[in-house]
Amino acid sequence: MSGDKVSRPRARLPRGFRDRGAAEIVAERACLDTIRKVYESYGFEPLETPAFEYTDALGKFLPDLDRPNEGVFSLQDDDSQWMSLRYDLTAPLARYVAENFQNLPKPFRRYQVGPVWRNEKPGPGRYREFTQFDADTVGSNSPSADAELLMMTCDVLEKLGLAPGEYVIKFNTREILDGLLNELGLTELSKRITVLRALDKYDRLGERGVKALLGKGRTDESGDHTTGAGLAEEQIDQIMMLFEVGQQPSDLSFDELPDWEKQDSAYSYSSFDQKLGGFVNEVYSSRQPGALPISNKNTIALLRSWLPKTETINRACQQLEQISDIVRARHFGSKRIRFDPSIIRGLEYYTGPVFEAQLTFPVTNDAGETVVFGSVAGGGRYDDLVARFTGQQVPATGISIGVSRLLSALRSRSKPALAPLVVVLSLDDPQSSFRMAAELRAAGIRAETYVGTKKFGDQLKYADKRGASVAVIEGGDEREKGQVTLKDLALGAEMSKSIENRADWIKGRAAQVSVARGALVETVRAMLHVKGS
Amino acid sequence: MSGDKVSRPRARLPRGFRDRGAAEIVAERACLDTIRKVYESYGFEPLETPAFEYTDALGKFLPDLDRPNEGVFSLQDDDSQWMSLRYDLTAPLARYVAENFQNLPKPFRRYQVGPVWRNEKPGPGRYREFTQFDADTVGSNSPSADAELLMMTCDVLEKLGLAPGEYVIKFNTREILDGLLNELGLTELSKRITVLRALDKYDRLGERGVKALLGKGRTDESGDHTTGAGLAEEQIDQIMMLFEVGQQPSDLSFDELPDWEKQDSAYSYSSFDQKLGGFVNEVYSSRQPGALPISNKNTIALLRSWLPKTETINRACQQLEQISDIVRARHFGSKRIRFDPSIIRGLEYYTGPVFEAQLTFPVTNDAGETVVFGSVAGGGRYDDLVARFTGQQVPATGISIGVSRLLSALRSRSKPALAPLVVVLSLDDPQSSFRMAAELRAAGIRAETYVGTKKFGDQLKYADKRGASVAVIEGGDEREKGQVTLKDLALGAEMSKSIENRADWIKGRAAQVSVARGALVETVRAMLHVKGS
Repeated sequence: MSGDKVSRPRARLPRGFRDRGAAEIVAERACLDTIRKVYESYGFEPLETPAFEYTDALGKFLPDLDRPNEGVFSLQDDDSQWMSLRYDLTAPLARYVAENFQNLPKPFRRYQVGPVWRNEKPGPGRYREFTQFDADTVGSNSPSADAELLMMTCDVLEKLGLAPGEYVIKFNTREILDGLLNELGLTELSKRITVLRALDKYDRLGERGVKALLGKGRTDESGDHTTGAGLAEEQIDQIMMLFEVGQQPSDLSFDELPDWEKQDSAYSYSSFDQKLGGFVNEVYSSRQPGALPISNKNTIALLRSWLPKTETINRACQQLEQISDIVRARHFGSKRIRFDPSIIRGLEYYTGPVFEAQLTFPVTNDAGETVVFGSVAGGGRYDDLVARFTGQQVPATGISIGVSRLLSALRSRSKPALAPLVVVLSLDDPQSSFRMAAELRAAGIRAETYVGTKKFGDQLKYADKRGASVAVIEGGDEREKGQVTLKDLALGAEMSKSIENRADWIKGRAAQVSVARGALVETVRAMLHVKGS
Repeated sequence: MSGDKVSRPRARLPRGFRDRGAAEIVAERACLDTIRKVYESYGFEPLETPAFEYTDALGKFLPDLDRPNEGVFSLQDDDSQWMSLRYDLTAPLARYVAENFQNLPKPFRRYQVGPVWRNEKPGPGRYREFTQFDADTVGSNSPSADAELLMMTCDVLEKLGLAPGEYVIKFNTREILDGLLNELGLTELSKRITVLRALDKYDRLGERGVKALLGKGRTDESGDHTTGAGLAEEQIDQIMMLFEVGQQPSDLSFDELPDWEKQDSAYSYSSFDQKLGGFVNEVYSSRQPGALPISNKNTIALLRSWLPKTETINRACQQLEQISDIVRARHFGSKRIRFDPSIIRGLEYYTGPVFEAQLTFPVTNDAGETVVFGSVAGGGRYDDLVARFTGQQVPATGISIGVSRLLSALRSRSKPALAPLVVVLSLDDPQSSFRMAAELRAAGIRAETYVGTKKFGDQLKYADKRGASVAVIEGGDEREKGQVTLKDLALGAEMSKSIENRADWIKGRAAQVSVARGALVETVRAMLHVKGS
């Protein structure tokens, strides 16, 4: 009852999608377990929303999307309503909170892990399906909630094996930029969004590219032109100043030490100070000009001294100070959690503090080349997202870990793997083979019975290809004698490299032993142990 | 920079989709971990294919679909190619194997877990997104491969807490029906598919309904008419005989006992025997008519004696016997793994053995009503699915566990839960609260800092609503004295039910203690321990 075979489909994946094998899945599982344990230990509980949401419920918040539905995968349900696959886990959370607000504890703290889909142009290493792991606190406008997410992310990254200094979690608040744009007279929403997106491209386009996008526009290598925000040069210079502060060298952070304030330091804000015309000197006149130790508190103070004194900016700086104080009290200094006013985040819905976790060590790609690695986690406060549905503001803040990106960066470091495998060959008595595999499994050993062709050679080749550690062989003669042969495949493979004379050949025999059938489990256990597993 | 608020979307989920909360997710995670461990112990390794496949690669194998794309969610990529969300995990596996055949070990054994999507009419308890957990062996035509899946599924279900007899895994082969239809002269493919689908509805429609679908057709309660296969009454009777054999009572299985053959038995195939006109007597003349103990071997033998003697049926029966012998050798008797010739499975692509796991205990729904519970796992052999792509047959067999269904059936049995939670209130010194929570976490206790409003009442209410076991309270006075108050919320809640006199009130005080700040962790640990966690 099989289908017709006249025209055959080609076996291939849609563009931008990929299959993943055991090594990557096992590594991801270990990573997800670690994140989950940290999130749960902080009191976040799991929630799962479905893959689909109504398109209007998701909203359009992806960067670089001017046309409706671009960026998301959408289709019409049979009642003609448009549904879309989620492009992140935040928009569905806002829908969930709006729908269930009355019954939720306040604040509501949940985590969610799962795939998200982006209908974007695929490219090398750029997939249209990837895993995110989010934690959000909904219903609190306290900077405590933001600060906690920063600390929790540090805990996650360190539990994943990163040392402080191998990553840095940067924070800022959108309200700094908001206040600055207000002062520069840029009130038009569409223009503000253009500025926002231009700034978010700093990592990719650098100072020159961003300046072009803030001004007259930019033509890329392929000849595509992006219209700029049309700002005046002076306005551009003011905004670009935010990046000066962000450019502290990453190894110049002393305030991990509880007594950092006592440290003398030659490190300084000198570049920033120079640009600002000696602000450090003015503000901290008791210190040597430009030689103030770097700390979040100092950076915030310096920026504040330079920024316009408006209500928005004042409130923003107070929030930044509160966040800074809380993380400082738990000894998370600027080496791990750093204020950086150039952090913007591309998503439009952020309203306050924004965060971004970056790796500071060189990451190599599949080709062994060192690549510039962007953020592995990001998030921020989105106080208006629930109000989209209800009209009532519900403050909320969250962070999302890009698991796929993080994993590819950590690939060279830890390699969680499946337990060693034993393959029981199946020669003339499959029932006996199944019994042996079952005995091994009962002893906690991963063991499979070969279920393919009857050829001995195929079976051994299979065990090799599977990377099995031990092959169990029971021929008819052996069974009669109550014996079974165990082949140590890992050892055998190693020895076969150097079989050049008889002495080696004799050693090679040690990779294979015959034992009593009753000694199967204990012998296999010993063989696996010998190899340190 | 929030969006406009003129017209607000309504917060609601698309039809047929649902959100899932912590209790269900934690239970599912425990379930998936168990299945994964069993599958891995048998040597199956994980594979993940993406959510999308090209529509032509998925094929159209869903039951009850006469129109193209019905049953699946499909959309056009920007290069106009049609993509669909996977409706199962088997079709993507066939695509994967066809694409990567050269590099795979043979047989190739993989498991995959993940959501699948069906574009079906939603109904109560019937969702359009659900989780499947599949294991497949590709590249082996040996009945060993089928038998192994049956035994592995037993292991899974028993590791999940089911006792033998609380479930039964039934097996059959499509070739029995194929052979029978050949003999009845029903060679037309579309007619055969109609018969297949009619038989697969036996559980839902019963004998009468199936007979109608095999004959002139059936009009359901809503007045909808389904055209029948148009078979003659005699043909229908022949086919329906398969169901007679399947109706052994589930508690009449003796061959779990290694020495079953010695057992005398009053149980019998009498109903079947009667219909067949004394076949048992004829075939097993040495025994009392109709009093043959029930076993897979006997059932297969009886059926074989009755079925037409064709090559297809002969081969089918041999396969069934081989499967039966292998599982029997590992003491999986017909109480756990049972031959039942009425098992058909709705999917069109099966070519040989088919399997179905059923629960035999009464399952209650949310309303407390006992419901008839269908299969929780199913699968079979699909030797032609890879050939759809390559033209070359690659034998394959697999089983899929319907995790969502299985979980809802097991709901009343085991309740894996998150570890008990401690909420640290945050009154006037959030930094101190964060430190306390961090200390508790470092001791392995799930502890969160309250990050919402400053009101004491709100905070306690929150801890209650979250189901926290202990609340940690540190007011300004207490901090000065170096103390902290611990409220045992679980104990307090229990006591508050019976506070009627002063004595009770005094006991109630025990639910709250003040201890030295340095004794925080050890006291909380003791409080959690007291409650047996």
